[in-house]
Amino acid sequence: MRVAVLTEPGEFAIEERPRPEPAADEVLVRIREVGICGSDVHYYEHGRIGEHVVEDPLVLGHESAGEVAAVGADVSGLAAGDRVAIEPGVPCRRCDHCKRGEYHLCPDVTFMATPPHDGAFAEYVAWPADFVYRLPEEVSTREGALCEPLSVGIHVARRGDVSTGDTVLVTGAGPIGLCVMEAVRAAGATDVVISDVVGSKLDLAAARGADRTVDVSEESLVDAVDDYTNGRGTDVVVEASGADPAVRATTEAVRHGGTVVLVGLGDDEPVPLDVVELIHQEVDIHTSFRYANTYPTAIDLLADERVDVEGFVDFEMGLRDVDDAFQRATEAETVKGVLTL
Amino acid sequence: MRVAVLTEPGEFAIEERPRPEPAADEVLVRIREVGICGSDVHYYEHGRIGEHVVEDPLVLGHESAGEVAAVGADVSGLAAGDRVAIEPGVPCRRCDHCKRGEYHLCPDVTFMATPPHDGAFAEYVAWPADFVYRLPEEVSTREGALCEPLSVGIHVARRGDVSTGDTVLVTGAGPIGLCVMEAVRAAGATDVVISDVVGSKLDLAAARGADRTVDVSEESLVDAVDDYTNGRGTDVVVEASGADPAVRATTEAVRHGGTVVLVGLGDDEPVPLDVVELIHQEVDIHTSFRYANTYPTAIDLLADERVDVEGFVDFEMGLRDVDDAFQRATEAETVKGVLTL
Amino acid sequence: MRVAVLTEPGEFAIEERPRPEPAADEVLVRIREVGICGSDVHYYEHGRIGEHVVEDPLVLGHESAGEVAAVGADVSGLAAGDRVAIEPGVPCRRCDHCKRGEYHLCPDVTFMATPPHDGAFAEYVAWPADFVYRLPEEVSTREGALCEPLSVGIHVARRGDVSTGDTVLVTGAGPIGLCVMEAVRAAGATDVVISDVVGSKLDLAAARGADRTVDVSEESLVDAVDDYTNGRGTDVVVEASGADPAVRATTEAVRHGGTVVLVGLGDDEPVPLDVVELIHQEVDIHTSFRYANTYPTAIDLLADERVDVEGFVDFEMGLRDVDDAFQRATEAETVKGVLTL
Amino acid sequence: MRVAVLTEPGEFAIEERPRPEPAADEVLVRIREVGICGSDVHYYEHGRIGEHVVEDPLVLGHESAGEVAAVGADVSGLAAGDRVAIEPGVPCRRCDHCKRGEYHLCPDVTFMATPPHDGAFAEYVAWPADFVYRLPEEVSTREGALCEPLSVGIHVARRGDVSTGDTVLVTGAGPIGLCVMEAVRAAGATDVVISDVVGSKLDLAAARGADRTVDVSEESLVDAVDDYTNGRGTDVVVEASGADPAVRATTEAVRHGGTVVLVGLGDDEPVPLDVVELIHQEVDIHTSFRYANTYPTAIDLLADERVDVEGFVDFEMGLRDVDDAFQRATEAETVKGVLTL
Repeated sequence: MRVAVLTEPGEFAIEERPRPEPAADEVLVRIREVGICGSDVHYYEHGRIGEHVVEDPLVLGHESAGEVAAVGADVSGLAAGDRVAIEPGVPCRRCDHCKRGEYHLCPDVTFMATPPHDGAFAEYVAWPADFVYRLPEEVSTREGALCEPLSVGIHVARRGDVSTGDTVLVTGAGPIGLCVMEAVRAAGATDVVISDVVGSKLDLAAARGADRTVDVSEESLVDAVDDYTNGRGTDVVVEASGADPAVRATTEAVRHGGTVVLVGLGDDEPVPLDVVELIHQEVDIHTSFRYANTYPTAIDLLADERVDVEGFVDFEMGLRDVDDAFQRATEAETVKGVLTL
Repeated sequence: MRVAVLTEPGEFAIEERPRPEPAADEVLVRIREVGICGSDVHYYEHGRIGEHVVEDPLVLGHESAGEVAAVGADVSGLAAGDRVAIEPGVPCRRCDHCKRGEYHLCPDVTFMATPPHDGAFAEYVAWPADFVYRLPEEVSTREGALCEPLSVGIHVARRGDVSTGDTVLVTGAGPIGLCVMEAVRAAGATDVVISDVVGSKLDLAAARGADRTVDVSEESLVDAVDDYTNGRGTDVVVEASGADPAVRATTEAVRHGGTVVLVGLGDDEPVPLDVVELIHQEVDIHTSFRYANTYPTAIDLLADERVDVEGFVDFEMGLRDVDDAFQRATEAETVKGVLTL
Repeated sequence: MRVAVLTEPGEFAIEERPRPEPAADEVLVRIREVGICGSDVHYYEHGRIGEHVVEDPLVLGHESAGEVAAVGADVSGLAAGDRVAIEPGVPCRRCDHCKRGEYHLCPDVTFMATPPHDGAFAEYVAWPADFVYRLPEEVSTREGALCEPLSVGIHVARRGDVSTGDTVLVTGAGPIGLCVMEAVRAAGATDVVISDVVGSKLDLAAARGADRTVDVSEESLVDAVDDYTNGRGTDVVVEASGADPAVRATTEAVRHGGTVVLVGLGDDEPVPLDVVELIHQEVDIHTSFRYANTYPTAIDLLADERVDVEGFVDFEMGLRDVDDAFQRATEAETVKGVLTL
Repeated sequence: MRVAVLTEPGEFAIEERPRPEPAADEVLVRIREVGICGSDVHYYEHGRIGEHVVEDPLVLGHESAGEVAAVGADVSGLAAGDRVAIEPGVPCRRCDHCKRGEYHLCPDVTFMATPPHDGAFAEYVAWPADFVYRLPEEVSTREGALCEPLSVGIHVARRGDVSTGDTVLVTGAGPIGLCVMEAVRAAGATDVVISDVVGSKLDLAAARGADRTVDVSEESLVDAVDDYTNGRGTDVVVEASGADPAVRATTEAVRHGGTVVLVGLGDDEPVPLDVVELIHQEVDIHTSFRYANTYPTAIDLLADERVDVEGFVDFEMGLRDVDDAFQRATEAETVKGVLTL
């Protein structure tokens, strides 16, 4: 089978590799669609993310879906031909975190496209059956692949305890910001303010129903929020950009007793927070890391047309055009590219 | 001013009464729309609900909205001419329940149209300003009145902890069942099964987006749920009919680890529940009584067109036609009538 | 190795069986102490519990602790000689319930001494290492065995959301009732009222710090609670007896807005509940089935001397005296017997 | 009546003022004991706390208790002679925060000894009856006064969702740190590590049952926590010192998925936090401001001897010695002083 391997920063190679055999509890999936994530692009450009260093050639891609090609001996509930989405992180199932249902915190997780684990830019992947989800007719294979960023959004909405009637500020209108917008609306938020520095992304957000867009290269985020909320602040602020000024603004934009959710990964510089002010306003700061128990929800939401994830895909390319695809993915205006196999 | 007074069971009188003067913390509201609630009808037919007995002539009606006619000396934030919805229960503000934010459980609540407190079938009502909510342009006065049953639905959704992707069974397709359906969808439920014995109500529910309707005079509720959920049961069951068979079915229709919310008030006969089975499935039963902190949410949802409450109004009549209105309200097919003043 | 096998109702046989070999992820435990649970006694007397029928000879016992005799190839963190407690239920690790951290609801759990799975009345048991917990010096092996009923109590306290300053009524002063009393006190409850029909059990409860004991063969439970709480009712009621009158009393004994936890398994007769009254008081009924994620907590509480479980053990006997032990276990005054191996 | 008035920074005057008359919903309390809080000392030394500036002479003191001297016309449930504790903040009862039960966030709260509201260094105070709590026989009047800092601790334990078996790090062993230690133990925490820079305070904490004390002038806090928790981190970290290094250390000392509670008010300098690290560990930061709905709990805990607050009082002095008392209160070794009237 063919795979796209990151051999060194900035360079992919298309290789032939043996098709994997599914173990007894695994299914073999013929991959059809793989989203390109910011982390893939970061590995492509820098060869590392924090302590995760690409030392050996690595197959990237972790937003994937396709069809079941074969099932292991112990697998029930899935059959060859089923269209499926793959959840890319498989935990140890045995540690305290796993037992408590917060398996995304498992220290021994195997996560696709995180060194040393290969990802899904491959024609076939063998994967534990319980992390492979059948897609109903109403959900396309591409939507299946995009269950991954949507899961990030769903987890954020849960972490922020977003509820019916909430006003939410989302800083950053990239794929995560947009998925957060979808997820918080699905959870009942009635007002979404969204900010970015790229006008085209804000236009897209507006077209997708944002109640107010804020171009922070042109106006003050805090002023805009004050204006929209009559000085009250939003119930929830989701920081999805990783940009220092946005992180700082969160605590001014949130209402007294409200919640800030941090999900955007910026550089490693510490961000100064005004502790005394936070205490006086009894603000909570929740962080949000990946997700757990979100795929069934994501599929339900897509099947019910409560969310849209295909609408922000900018381009699709074949596996052989992976270099072009990553070039385009690095452009500021790009929201989401997809590789088709 | 004119008021409609229930003088004895089955009899209304239209009377002239002095217009009330708002106290310093009150506003005077010119009432325009009042929904007729099942409890109004119950007082009309039986002269009592449980221990609440109509001993003196009583002004009914507690689902009301109108315009501010005057404001008390200490009131800010509301002005004459504002269109407003009135929350009909005013608590003592001092007991443990009030201090904990569960003011609907206050034992000293003043609740409209519950003896000995008069209700809103009156041209004017003086009411504490903090239980009077201004309606934005997007929300009609009628919708303002119907914030009351919608509040019941919102409280149920909270009590059931309904969340994104949930499948919910609602038993009873009257105004409460329909408001529950609206509220759980707004809270993220993707699948709603609804049951009743009146075909026209089920047709209405289907037209309003129910995923599956069950006429329990024709088919088994539990079988229908099993069929819809592949034997799994629904995440949440909301019992909104008060009918014994429906209450009994709840525990069979809910999934293991799921939640039943009881909101429908039937007769006072105890209902047998299978405790051993409930424990083995670790099912929770939550009850839901009135509501607290729901009006701002109701208005946000209406303004954002996330819910519809006008669509299930069957008829409107003027205050002078209150007898006809109540006759019609007692018919099985009627969902909701509104008095206009 | 020797095991005690229930061959038919009322009859144990001591048999020799081959010592099990631990699999790669298992440890072999030399069992030292096994508590006799009410469910063991029920199988002994009736050969079945509901749908669970003893069709083949069954090794009973699921409250066990001992020493590690050997460890499988993949096991780290445990070594021969470690004193350990065994959690008797091992879930599938793959279903929705397991992934959400509610593994006690896993439909495919392997639970000791539940047909067809053998239990711990055996000199050796091989068990998955992650359900075997090392005991610190401060915790005795017997306490290790009694982490099982203590876990039931801890789960109840969580299910009832018992918190600091709560007043709790516990109906039933057997081992579960006493473990609930320990657990709710550890969780901050300041007042515990406990009821039973056996005077000696109430004496024991009083000696262990119950604030009020109620012999329901002599006085009214609801009156006693009204007296203790000045008519307010308790914040939480835990029904740990399975007796119909106790189940019925729960809803009268709990305060408005309070929570009833049902954990006692009685016969299968449905219990009539006053739904209208429950709704008016907005009472929650939570059921509590087994436990999940409790063993580390149980061990912490025992090590910190925050709870006592050895103090209610009535007798210990050797494995060969299992018949005598079960005879004694059937007596009304018996709280807890332990087999030593 | 006599009152102690802060006339300017560093200067108290003993004045005669007219005894207040209780309004209809108020009680008049003869104050007997008033704790000296760090905020009192801060006003004494600096004449301001942040934006709160002492512009007119101010009666300090907000940790108070005494006896009811008279009751207003509408007051029931309290009578002359009752010993009582006074909750020092009275909210508006009408805003969204009040209605939701988070009345400590009410923007219109009247809080004792916060300009322009006088406090309790006075022989008599008239106060709304529902913020005055009768003390049972088991609770001393001094304990009643110290319900105030204990309330801060109880609120912190709730904000941190501290539960049975938790390991908690408390940074700062002053009165708040010690009250937090009491409250988290009452809520089930089995292990408390506490840090400070003053050896005598750590000795006191150790004598009161801290499992590990850390003198951060001598050893690394993070290393000490790593050592105590085998590198895992504590479930909850409560920052009760306001010191920058402590705030920074919180995120390293907490376990993955754990919670940091910030309650200590330091200077207004922003504290840099490592956002990327926080997200990778999915740590929550909750802030804790004052308290709500804690006085009944505090009294229950004291009556049940579950907590001790008298044991950390260093000294008592009469009202006339207020200057000496405040001198002593500024010393580093002082934990808590009390004025008696």
